[in-house]
Amino acid sequence: MSSSSAPISNQQPTWIKPTTKTEQDEPVLKLYNTLTRSKVEFIPRDKNEVTWYSCGPTVYNSSHMGHARNYVTIDINRRILQDYFGYNVKFIQNVTDIDDKIILKARQEYLFDQFAQPFKKSGIISDDLVDKAQKGFNSYVSKNLPDFKEQTIETDFIKWTQSLDLKTLSITKPKYPMHIKASIAALTAINSKSTISVEEFLLKTQDVIVPLLDDELGSTVTDPEIFKNCSSFWERKFDEDMSQLNVLPSTVTTRVSEYVPEIVEFVSKIVDQGFAYATSDGSVYFNTSKFDQSANHDYAKCAPWSKGNKELIEDGEGSLSLSTTDTKLSSSDFALWKSSKPGEPSWTSPWGQGRPGWHIECSVMASDFVGDGMDIHSGGIDLAFPHHDNELAQSEAHFDCQQWVNYFLHTGHLHIEGQKMSKSLKNFITIEEALEKYSARQLRLCFALVQWNNSLDFKESLLHEVKSIESSLKRFFKNVRALKSDNDHKLSQGQVISKKCGDLEKKLFADILDTKKKVHAAFCDNLATPLAIRSLMDLVNSSNTYITSSGAELRLEPLLQSVYYVTKILKVLGFTTRSDSLGWSDDSTNTSESNNSGSIEDIVMPYMKVLSNFRDLVRNSAIKKEDYKVFLEATDTLRNKELLNLNVSLDDRSDGQGALIKFLNDEEKQELILQQEEKLQAQLEKERKKLEQLKLKEAKEKERLEKAKISPIDMFKTDEYRKLYSEWDETGMPVKNIEGEELAKSAKKKLAKLHDAQKKLHDEYLKSL
Amino acid sequence: MSSSSAPISNQQPTWIKPTTKTEQDEPVLKLYNTLTRSKVEFIPRDKNEVTWYSCGPTVYNSSHMGHARNYVTIDINRRILQDYFGYNVKFIQNVTDIDDKIILKARQEYLFDQFAQPFKKSGIISDDLVDKAQKGFNSYVSKNLPDFKEQTIETDFIKWTQSLDLKTLSITKPKYPMHIKASIAALTAINSKSTISVEEFLLKTQDVIVPLLDDELGSTVTDPEIFKNCSSFWERKFDEDMSQLNVLPSTVTTRVSEYVPEIVEFVSKIVDQGFAYATSDGSVYFNTSKFDQSANHDYAKCAPWSKGNKELIEDGEGSLSLSTTDTKLSSSDFALWKSSKPGEPSWTSPWGQGRPGWHIECSVMASDFVGDGMDIHSGGIDLAFPHHDNELAQSEAHFDCQQWVNYFLHTGHLHIEGQKMSKSLKNFITIEEALEKYSARQLRLCFALVQWNNSLDFKESLLHEVKSIESSLKRFFKNVRALKSDNDHKLSQGQVISKKCGDLEKKLFADILDTKKKVHAAFCDNLATPLAIRSLMDLVNSSNTYITSSGAELRLEPLLQSVYYVTKILKVLGFTTRSDSLGWSDDSTNTSESNNSGSIEDIVMPYMKVLSNFRDLVRNSAIKKEDYKVFLEATDTLRNKELLNLNVSLDDRSDGQGALIKFLNDEEKQELILQQEEKLQAQLEKERKKLEQLKLKEAKEKERLEKAKISPIDMFKTDEYRKLYSEWDETGMPVKNIEGEELAKSAKKKLAKLHDAQKKLHDEYLKSL
Repeated sequence: MSSSSAPISNQQPTWIKPTTKTEQDEPVLKLYNTLTRSKVEFIPRDKNEVTWYSCGPTVYNSSHMGHARNYVTIDINRRILQDYFGYNVKFIQNVTDIDDKIILKARQEYLFDQFAQPFKKSGIISDDLVDKAQKGFNSYVSKNLPDFKEQTIETDFIKWTQSLDLKTLSITKPKYPMHIKASIAALTAINSKSTISVEEFLLKTQDVIVPLLDDELGSTVTDPEIFKNCSSFWERKFDEDMSQLNVLPSTVTTRVSEYVPEIVEFVSKIVDQGFAYATSDGSVYFNTSKFDQSANHDYAKCAPWSKGNKELIEDGEGSLSLSTTDTKLSSSDFALWKSSKPGEPSWTSPWGQGRPGWHIECSVMASDFVGDGMDIHSGGIDLAFPHHDNELAQSEAHFDCQQWVNYFLHTGHLHIEGQKMSKSLKNFITIEEALEKYSARQLRLCFALVQWNNSLDFKESLLHEVKSIESSLKRFFKNVRALKSDNDHKLSQGQVISKKCGDLEKKLFADILDTKKKVHAAFCDNLATPLAIRSLMDLVNSSNTYITSSGAELRLEPLLQSVYYVTKILKVLGFTTRSDSLGWSDDSTNTSESNNSGSIEDIVMPYMKVLSNFRDLVRNSAIKKEDYKVFLEATDTLRNKELLNLNVSLDDRSDGQGALIKFLNDEEKQELILQQEEKLQAQLEKERKKLEQLKLKEAKEKERLEKAKISPIDMFKTDEYRKLYSEWDETGMPVKNIEGEELAKSAKKKLAKLHDAQKKLHDEYLKSL
Repeated sequence: MSSSSAPISNQQPTWIKPTTKTEQDEPVLKLYNTLTRSKVEFIPRDKNEVTWYSCGPTVYNSSHMGHARNYVTIDINRRILQDYFGYNVKFIQNVTDIDDKIILKARQEYLFDQFAQPFKKSGIISDDLVDKAQKGFNSYVSKNLPDFKEQTIETDFIKWTQSLDLKTLSITKPKYPMHIKASIAALTAINSKSTISVEEFLLKTQDVIVPLLDDELGSTVTDPEIFKNCSSFWERKFDEDMSQLNVLPSTVTTRVSEYVPEIVEFVSKIVDQGFAYATSDGSVYFNTSKFDQSANHDYAKCAPWSKGNKELIEDGEGSLSLSTTDTKLSSSDFALWKSSKPGEPSWTSPWGQGRPGWHIECSVMASDFVGDGMDIHSGGIDLAFPHHDNELAQSEAHFDCQQWVNYFLHTGHLHIEGQKMSKSLKNFITIEEALEKYSARQLRLCFALVQWNNSLDFKESLLHEVKSIESSLKRFFKNVRALKSDNDHKLSQGQVISKKCGDLEKKLFADILDTKKKVHAAFCDNLATPLAIRSLMDLVNSSNTYITSSGAELRLEPLLQSVYYVTKILKVLGFTTRSDSLGWSDDSTNTSESNNSGSIEDIVMPYMKVLSNFRDLVRNSAIKKEDYKVFLEATDTLRNKELLNLNVSLDDRSDGQGALIKFLNDEEKQELILQQEEKLQAQLEKERKKLEQLKLKEAKEKERLEKAKISPIDMFKTDEYRKLYSEWDETGMPVKNIEGEELAKSAKKKLAKLHDAQKKLHDEYLKSL
């Protein structure tokens, strides 16, 4: 052996700093920005933090499929930014709980309820009621269907409606079908008043009676609770719908009603800066032309071509504000603050009692968290003008900044089988209704299959595609899980299964890599979920091919990588996935239940058993009319033993609140058991002492009894006294002491006292016999 | 109103491209690289894909805490790169299933089993057996404890061992304690052969007998299954340990035994390129000095100062190779291919029957997936030299590349209470043993609290810190969940809860943001998990402070953001978290069970609520001594309404068995509700009929009463009878008919009967007055 010839050196050789292989068209994340009407690179203001304000619901009615499309689509976009691109997204969404629509809905519902109550109680369609309905019908028709000019309504109205081509008409007069439907319903009810119930009559004439009532009595509705109850009820419903659709809750939710002081302040500043003016009626308007003409600012950035569009502007101002348009400097100006008439909720402001305009709320609430600029603002495309353009103008005026929102994302419209969704076309679907027919997963898949900023046509062929993709994925996941479980079983039997990857496996790995690149490119390209899903489906196909062609030589590892990746991307898109990452959750019908659905019975059964046993005992004891102690003991056993065994503690509370339920871990359970034992020990100790006392008392009593048996005549003749005295009289009283001397008077007196006491005791004893 | 003065334009104003606010010291991900012995920026070869080769286990024994530290720590690092930094990590890990240690273990275990079998069967410690043990003992001592020079082993050996200072000795001769322990055990067994069982004798003498057997019979062990069974058994055990520790499975697992042809090819190429040479005995060695002296290459990049370290080199070559060192050109050269002697598994090669050297396997298997270069290679620090340095040399020679591995991550040592872990120090802990004492979560937390590349001292104070952090987090999660559940309950009761964020909430949001930045900086700084966890704990503290100071004005949303973030990072670190992201899973002891435990509470809660309410009612009613009806009604409501709502039916049974519990699906539930309604309807119908009958009876009774009022004298004088008769006698009995004819006798008889009946009725009536 030659000696070591490797030169010894304590210096490490120079490390070569690696370089990342850059491809020519390395994708970067681009988003379709309404502010440019093009896809532009996403550059956040802060490297990892993204601020995002999303226009939330106006809460006065059931949410429908249009809402579902918007909120689920935005949820998908948010999740991709968060969970795929890794941004920390601060997602702020408002609840519009002050709005003309809410005011009208709440007020009218309240008035109609008040109006209908006595009729419902009497059960009679009185002449008064019919009169009201008739009056309502006439005024409804003349107000909403001005094209009807005939004299004799009763006979000609139906004919007239039948002569109309509603489909064509609804293009120019979109609300005609709705008004005709309401009018016909009312007319029919009036004509058949003698054959229908008062409830049916009220239902059918409600739409025509309500405007009358509102005109007459609207101004008397002043209790703020009426408006608040309406909005908070529908806010809760909205939250429930979103939860059903597995939409992530917002980071922050802001309610207009909780931001009025801030809104007043914000408006004041805009007035101070000269971009808004108060009118004589106590409203404040934004001066659009002054803003647009100022050097730093542009009005209507999202849709400059809509400037001056009267219909859109009026719609944006709300139905309760139409009468005030006269006081504006320009028809393009919009309300920041609306003076409130009687029957409208109001808050104090420098301009009198009023309420916020629609657009200002978003500026103020968003600013509270993003300040003078945010990364992303989103909403449905129909909000672009005037709502979002006004919001931008307000905020840019307030902060004197040039670009308050960097990326404005507007989700596309939703159609139903090619048509606009509307109640009159009978294709109006609430989220609740949709969820009866389709699972939340199917709806989400449906939305993910259409580019978020395009229109979505909710039609049969799309749903067909959804179901086909769903079942392909389902089959794939089930298949791989079966193969894995088979593999695990073989391993547990001690079988050695080869893990060697050959060409087939390397092909699958290459396919996975390829899919990753394609999905990445798709997400970068304006979050193109349809493309991403199609790439996933290609990978599912290659994986299925691999399973078939590898046969008995199947290697689990590359296959698992494929499932893990598909699952990962599905999870990014907001589908509920299994905790083992082997596909999505099995039960598609209900997201909230799906995590454990198979075993609910197994999980719940022990608790049910305890409940049932307890109930049996109560029932039987009540039948047998047992002592009440039996019931109380049963409630104690239930708490201290049976439920504790199941790691549940009940804390009885005294204030009528009922017991507090807590789920314990084993440690906490042990602690509680220990506490109980200690308590029991203390109680036993107490009882032991009590017993001791009792015994002592008994012993004393016994002693007393023994003593009582002795007659007073004999009492001084016991051994004890015989040591002291030598002579007694006939009553047994000592006369002389042991020395034979006469006892002193005082001594005799003392003995007499004892003698008397004993006499009393002994008499009692004799009596007790 | 003036006309609209806003200028109409179809052009959108210019959008200002945002810029990301860059902070001066914006952190970038840096890793401590053994190749530079410093933290260097991590630059992957491909933008999103990271290739990572991890040195896996040599499978012949239980894995211990040192393994746990390495694999869990690497798992944490891998997860941070994957789940925090978003890289797609291809993680390749090998299983060394051909190795001198495995060969010896398998062969010796096999030989001893064969040897021991007849003695165990006979149950007798025969002279043969004692002889063998004695011989074994002598040769063991002379081979392993050469310092013992005395003649009379029986008496002097124990004395000699007692004279040694083992602690000092173990520094220079680390295996002495182990050998002494084995020798003493054997000697004791031999001395007490008449009092112990054959099993105990065999157990205690196994260590000294085995080398004898191996010397004598080792070469006869040729069945490859013997080696394979041993390695695959311990591979399975390793996988089980890793799964218990929640270590992610590798993307690809490679076994040496499945790569022998590729290894032969790889070695051939190195030989062809002149960096390796075959020796006469059929082995192939790597020419370290030639490699080191070549322009493009450096030998021992990780630890150049260890070049020529004989002990390390010999250890790396394996115990079965020691005899072949003579044939090497340099003592620094190492085996690529070892010729196999009889009793060693072997494969065909151009150099004869042999097997792969230790280092070559990793080069070949990694290359199969990463080719001529990878991003990250990891392993325990004790593998740096010679194993990893040799691996680098081989691969760089084979691919003729300069830097086969860009980042070499070596995990630090593990000590137990400041000492090296070893069987002789009685501080050797297998993973299985550790998991009996600590949960997988505690172990992971323990490892995460020490910087991955530093030494870890597994000591009381560290475990104390682990438990303290664990319980702080536990309390925090429970608290927030309780607050959320309280909030949800209030919402379900229709309460309106403010969501308005004030200063306290904004402070908490700011704390969350601050924590995110700190955790990001910590992860960027060489994956500094201890710092990251400390930042999380600071956030937990701020959140607790928020809960206290906000009191009844608590807002849930910011608090949830805090929990979500803490949970997210814990999940990144590989802790099992709840599917609702409100903390980690409750049950810490078992990872596999913990996946669903978090939601048991959610599943069972509605049932518990029902039970608790029912119990409250029973309790209060018993205290108030209510009528027993109250109890029975409560049991009915419980069955018919509350439990049915939860899809549970109770069938009361009469035979004292107690009610039968059934879980219903929605269809079954509806059916039951229908049945109940039908039953109710039937009952109502029955009651209606009963009422009818009662009315009928009453009417009849009334009629009878009216009739009874008539005196028998007047009864035949009513209008009804006046149409029939014309004359009556004094008792009121008719005598003649209307025609004036005398009544027939039979007719009179009939009338008399009626008369009698009426008399009876009338008498009764008179009496009743």
